[in-house]
Amino acid sequence: MTDLYLEDFSVGRRFTSTAHTLDAEQIKTFARQFDPQPFHLDEDAAKNSFFHGLAASGWHTAAITMSLLVKSGMPIAGGLIGAGGELTWPRPTRPGDTLIVESEVLAVTPSRSRPERGMITVRSITRNQNGEAVQDMTTRMLVWRRPV
Amino acid sequence: MTDLYLEDFSVGRRFTSTAHTLDAEQIKTFARQFDPQPFHLDEDAAKNSFFHGLAASGWHTAAITMSLLVKSGMPIAGGLIGAGGELTWPRPTRPGDTLIVESEVLAVTPSRSRPERGMITVRSITRNQNGEAVQDMTTRMLVWRRPV
Repeated sequence: MTDLYLEDFSVGRRFTSTAHTLDAEQIKTFARQFDPQPFHLDEDAAKNSFFHGLAASGWHTAAITMSLLVKSGMPIAGGLIGAGGELTWPRPTRPGDTLIVESEVLAVTPSRSRPERGMITVRSITRNQNGEAVQDMTTRMLVWRRPV
Repeated sequence: MTDLYLEDFSVGRRFTSTAHTLDAEQIKTFARQFDPQPFHLDEDAAKNSFFHGLAASGWHTAAITMSLLVKSGMPIAGGLIGAGGELTWPRPTRPGDTLIVESEVLAVTPSRSRPERGMITVRSITRNQNGEAVQDMTTRMLVWRRPV
């Protein structure tokens, strides 16, 4: 898909990423560095936790989601530059899960003060191999107008 | 600090984490795996980008924030379990930045249906060594009541 400019986005346009499968080792490696809690690090400790089994850090799910968006999810010209957003994790990401990201454009907002740019609001749902949402995220991203 | 239960949280209570300094190599290592875009990977490419210089992925800033919260930011009994939240990145995180996280409890909400638990709403601002906010995040976290 060629790079997309503000003019190429319309409300309701959808994108689907390729897939990423994660395993227990990826979950633990991320957790050791960024979220060193027993339920992300150790199967036995996780069994008796809130998660009832090893679960990925929500921030790991978020990072994988970003990697899928960057590599395959939405080819914004100039890159994916987020201003922020909101996210929830409706259920845990587990070892062996295969994740894809489905995105839908919710709003396209040209900038009033800067004619060369605008923002899009995008809802990206990260689903596992059973179609269950493991992350539901809405972000605002910077998008450039097509150069004249 | 001893582990904290729902009864220990009150609106306005504040927490400050220890510090984490990041360098260009950490920024690039995270980006290679999770956000492989030129402005997170290469100083020269970043110079001519929106960021005018190498910048960390926002998700890297989020992950470092989580690590600071887990290691030193807020000792919730049973761990930090987030249901979701919203975040913005008011300015980029740069190589050499030293980050700390300042958190403040915005709300304490006992569960109506599950007497053993509740939720707290926490605003966590991640600041660099100049006191500038690089991330402003509000999350809802699960907190247990003190066992009787």
